[in-house]
Amino acid sequence: MSITVVILAGGKGTRMYSSKPKVLHPIAGKPMLAHVVERARAVADGKLVVVVGHAAEHVRAAMGELPVSWVEQVPQLGTGHAMQCAAHELPQEGHSLVLYGDVPLLSDATLRAMLALAQGDDLVLLTQHLTDPSGYGRIRRDASGAVQAIVEQKDASAAERAITEINTGILLLPNVHLHRWLKALRNDNAQGEYYLTDLIGFAVRDQVAVRTLHPGCEWETLGVNNQLQRAELERHYQQQQAVQLMTQGVTLLDPARIDVRGELQCGKDVQIDVNCLFIGKVILGDNVSIGAHCVLQDCEIAAGSQIAPFSHLDGAQVGEGARIGPYARLRPGAVLAAQVHVGNFVEIKKSEVGVGSKVNHLTYIGDSSIGSGVNVGAGTVTCNYDGVNKSRTVIGDGAFIGSGSMLVAPLTIGAGATIGAGSTLSKDAPADQLTVARAKAVTIPGWTRPQKKSG
Amino acid sequence: MSITVVILAGGKGTRMYSSKPKVLHPIAGKPMLAHVVERARAVADGKLVVVVGHAAEHVRAAMGELPVSWVEQVPQLGTGHAMQCAAHELPQEGHSLVLYGDVPLLSDATLRAMLALAQGDDLVLLTQHLTDPSGYGRIRRDASGAVQAIVEQKDASAAERAITEINTGILLLPNVHLHRWLKALRNDNAQGEYYLTDLIGFAVRDQVAVRTLHPGCEWETLGVNNQLQRAELERHYQQQQAVQLMTQGVTLLDPARIDVRGELQCGKDVQIDVNCLFIGKVILGDNVSIGAHCVLQDCEIAAGSQIAPFSHLDGAQVGEGARIGPYARLRPGAVLAAQVHVGNFVEIKKSEVGVGSKVNHLTYIGDSSIGSGVNVGAGTVTCNYDGVNKSRTVIGDGAFIGSGSMLVAPLTIGAGATIGAGSTLSKDAPADQLTVARAKAVTIPGWTRPQKKSG
Amino acid sequence: MSITVVILAGGKGTRMYSSKPKVLHPIAGKPMLAHVVERARAVADGKLVVVVGHAAEHVRAAMGELPVSWVEQVPQLGTGHAMQCAAHELPQEGHSLVLYGDVPLLSDATLRAMLALAQGDDLVLLTQHLTDPSGYGRIRRDASGAVQAIVEQKDASAAERAITEINTGILLLPNVHLHRWLKALRNDNAQGEYYLTDLIGFAVRDQVAVRTLHPGCEWETLGVNNQLQRAELERHYQQQQAVQLMTQGVTLLDPARIDVRGELQCGKDVQIDVNCLFIGKVILGDNVSIGAHCVLQDCEIAAGSQIAPFSHLDGAQVGEGARIGPYARLRPGAVLAAQVHVGNFVEIKKSEVGVGSKVNHLTYIGDSSIGSGVNVGAGTVTCNYDGVNKSRTVIGDGAFIGSGSMLVAPLTIGAGATIGAGSTLSKDAPADQLTVARAKAVTIPGWTRPQKKSG
Repeated sequence: MSITVVILAGGKGTRMYSSKPKVLHPIAGKPMLAHVVERARAVADGKLVVVVGHAAEHVRAAMGELPVSWVEQVPQLGTGHAMQCAAHELPQEGHSLVLYGDVPLLSDATLRAMLALAQGDDLVLLTQHLTDPSGYGRIRRDASGAVQAIVEQKDASAAERAITEINTGILLLPNVHLHRWLKALRNDNAQGEYYLTDLIGFAVRDQVAVRTLHPGCEWETLGVNNQLQRAELERHYQQQQAVQLMTQGVTLLDPARIDVRGELQCGKDVQIDVNCLFIGKVILGDNVSIGAHCVLQDCEIAAGSQIAPFSHLDGAQVGEGARIGPYARLRPGAVLAAQVHVGNFVEIKKSEVGVGSKVNHLTYIGDSSIGSGVNVGAGTVTCNYDGVNKSRTVIGDGAFIGSGSMLVAPLTIGAGATIGAGSTLSKDAPADQLTVARAKAVTIPGWTRPQKKSG
Repeated sequence: MSITVVILAGGKGTRMYSSKPKVLHPIAGKPMLAHVVERARAVADGKLVVVVGHAAEHVRAAMGELPVSWVEQVPQLGTGHAMQCAAHELPQEGHSLVLYGDVPLLSDATLRAMLALAQGDDLVLLTQHLTDPSGYGRIRRDASGAVQAIVEQKDASAAERAITEINTGILLLPNVHLHRWLKALRNDNAQGEYYLTDLIGFAVRDQVAVRTLHPGCEWETLGVNNQLQRAELERHYQQQQAVQLMTQGVTLLDPARIDVRGELQCGKDVQIDVNCLFIGKVILGDNVSIGAHCVLQDCEIAAGSQIAPFSHLDGAQVGEGARIGPYARLRPGAVLAAQVHVGNFVEIKKSEVGVGSKVNHLTYIGDSSIGSGVNVGAGTVTCNYDGVNKSRTVIGDGAFIGSGSMLVAPLTIGAGATIGAGSTLSKDAPADQLTVARAKAVTIPGWTRPQKKSG
Repeated sequence: MSITVVILAGGKGTRMYSSKPKVLHPIAGKPMLAHVVERARAVADGKLVVVVGHAAEHVRAAMGELPVSWVEQVPQLGTGHAMQCAAHELPQEGHSLVLYGDVPLLSDATLRAMLALAQGDDLVLLTQHLTDPSGYGRIRRDASGAVQAIVEQKDASAAERAITEINTGILLLPNVHLHRWLKALRNDNAQGEYYLTDLIGFAVRDQVAVRTLHPGCEWETLGVNNQLQRAELERHYQQQQAVQLMTQGVTLLDPARIDVRGELQCGKDVQIDVNCLFIGKVILGDNVSIGAHCVLQDCEIAAGSQIAPFSHLDGAQVGEGARIGPYARLRPGAVLAAQVHVGNFVEIKKSEVGVGSKVNHLTYIGDSSIGSGVNVGAGTVTCNYDGVNKSRTVIGDGAFIGSGSMLVAPLTIGAGATIGAGSTLSKDAPADQLTVARAKAVTIPGWTRPQKKSG
């Protein structure tokens, strides 16, 4: 079946009170519109049309290069008008699937079920039963169960208001009729707008079968008009991620306290403690354990590694069996080999650290290559920046860097070298030797402690 | 209408198992009694009477100077007795609004609705429908719907127990009758106490109309007798704060994981990630983003600034477009200009930092004035304390402070100065020059690594 | 009454997708089987038999030395078969209580109620009413209310499927009949398994009274077959801990955001802010306050101490009135006296710190003895490790350690000594004197700043 997807994304979202167009507000760190585009791509490989209105350029720029046909709807005269604007992009055959840029959580399963339900030139409508249907258009059916009409709240009789089946607005329309119907839309209503809903009436009139189905979960068709609704969908989405992870066997200490904003791949026997955030693409190997209150962004943690609480990893690779944290900060370009230990209050960026090396306390490593079996003492700093340029520090295998060393790059420390504590080095240190820069300690005779100043 | 507010705050709160009087236990960091006083002030500008009993002095001291009339109730013989103790503070006209120090979440809207309902010398009673009314006094009405009596659980017939409308205890009493009624109260009951509830009976007998209304939310009238109930109200309160913020347009990543203990003002397009705490008065400008797991107390963050995860700000001011954290600690008196960067494991207190300056790693800045365009290297410490006195460090615009610098205050570093890494300075450094204090590095011939000691 | 407890713990737990046997998956950090063993020990002091099957050795090894009789069930042919395997461990008299290694949250109260219900040689069965009983065996009763049979879902008539009372599988069996019944079990069913459930039918047939009761909470009898169910029980367990703490008077800022994995003892007026974890045995004295986002493991905090946010304490002792954090890391063997202050980005391990001493910023203290009234400046490191051996640092009372000091152990600093900022000491410093190791600062004439390199 040939499917064209039309995403209506023109709304301003006044009640978001934001300078950002509504469809760019994120769920799980990604614009709602991007979610809808992704779902459309997942279920249909035909043309994708996005109708934008308010801040159209802003929306297009934010979405980047996408293989979609952008259509502008100016002014905005309702959903029917939006489809009229898109009509020139729609073929004469096949179906058009109408989605909304502010209804981001429709599942592939529901969409596929809609597509599967379509036969010939039928119309497919996603409906839903609500405990409280007030405000929604009700689905009026005849005795045989066939859809007769969508009755808007304001036009509904008492009996019709008691109907709990409502229109979600999600439609699969037969193009052969669609073009004709769009031309027939009228705006003789209070708002002077063209409503897509009227197409149901046209279908009934034209004896086009209206097939209906419900979404898999009731929150799939929820739309976002304000931040409360955005937050509600954010939590539905996150709960869904948590359920998926647990279903695969991941141990989550609290499914209500995990946020996945991107893609989280987990091996076997992974454990994730409370309040962790996963952003971008994160890969966790078998038996990886992530402590409480960690933030991991675009990083890969190999099997058996343990990330202790309060760690913040971004753009880092961690080898097998490593121990990271607590309070470890790995920044982009930190590449740690197996069995590396990185301890508290340590920052590493753009640096390789070799097998089994330890950087356990209060250290800054930047733009460095550290060999294997190296021990970096507390309070060490690779002084990689002279105010304008960044330079590299190279530390050979098995070196021992005493605490409080200032390693002024560019600098090479030979394999097996020992650097005495408190040394500032601006020249290379030879391998296998002790190099130290240290002033002699003197005890000052007759010195007295400072006195408390008045005032 | 002339309103006197009487807050009954004498209870001991035995089930709190605390040495602190119950009404001082906080909701959102503020004593429950302070919430009630605040609400009373918001809706009525007449006299405010607080009846205290257990630990009366403790309560008064903790509440500080307040324009209220304190009344002591000793011994404590019931709510009616509490009002009898307060009677001499009540005028002969107008109404008395009875509130409770352990019912902290009544809304202004509900209270104003009560006041608006009062006519002439009528009595107004706040009632509520509960799914499970057991234990509460039921509102018995006659066929016309007029309140006849409050029937206590123990005295209720089976039919009366089926009544779901209960007495909240929140009353607006006509003073012209109140004084007489209080004198007529009897304590001929099992507990030997005087009950305010009996006034409803007196009103009915005296043909004083009893008008009723319900609170806006059902949890508004919940009281606190133990820590479970306190926590429940804390979460209701916090949820309310979250809803208010979102309604204004703030993006909350999880409305169930934010705590506002004080006043949080937000500009447009503010985003707050999970698990943040806001304490005291916090002001966030437009486009400010607060990362996960941050604590902000009494601080102001100007537009466009980003606070990365795990940051702890208290008493700080942050200029526009700044980048703070992760793991940044700003303490009272930290005043950062626009575009300042403060990175991980950095502590700043009582210091100004100029436009665009960077303090990115493992640094302590205290009692300092740092100019604009300054770069402070990793591991720098302003040694502001000699054991008894604190002294100031002044760093001029454009200075470059090498890593691991110990700046022994009082000290001035000239504009454009460069301090070599690893230097300890106890004397001023001139502008535009390199100043360095560094021992010469030597490699020790014939040195061998320490050997593992046995045992 | 003589009670033998039999815990069935042989299941593989395929849907856990784990290499760990199901009963070893933890709730609150402790294997589910350990919870069940603990409950069994709490209510019965007779023999305890654990039937293991899949990965039997793994289970036994993980559980350590326990006074239980291990029975292997290979192959695994159903619950009845498991009991058959255990039969030789069961006496001829008294009762056998059947528990399950994957049903970890049964309460002592429920188990004690089961034991109390048993009379003579009766059988006691724990049943439960479920809103949705589908899938469970239903309890069929006769007109008098006596249990007649357990009807499995697949065998149930429409009327029987409407029964909401279900079999939990938790049984107290009279041994005098049990041995005979076990021999009579048949596996002529679709799965070819022996079902313990059949014993109810035997009891009815033999006119053995079947007494029933319900658990105290409906989640007590929930079992774990996948990670979703594990997480659900984890949260039930944690909620229970939170309720217990609050009932004792502990102020929890959010009962839904605390994790207790072990034993948490709290004094009076303890306050615990959001997102704290308590692991192992933690003791908090009166008036202790734990800030948000803290992790405390196996430590003891004396009265009046305050732990600020983001602190991580493991194996530490903290004296009265101490102030710890934010971002303080106390590791095993950190023993802090009263009134000690430990500030941000400070790590302390295997060290004693005396009364009133302060270690406020960016410091590593390891293998040290610090006297009272000592001030340790920012950026200080005890260099306790030379690459192979660890040595101790001793700092006398009242010493003042300047910022950025590297104290190369073994080292003793005398009482009242002052160490100049930026000193690296490898020899002892005398008491009451200033000792300093510092290179002279020089300003380099004619020096020019580095230029930006191209490329």
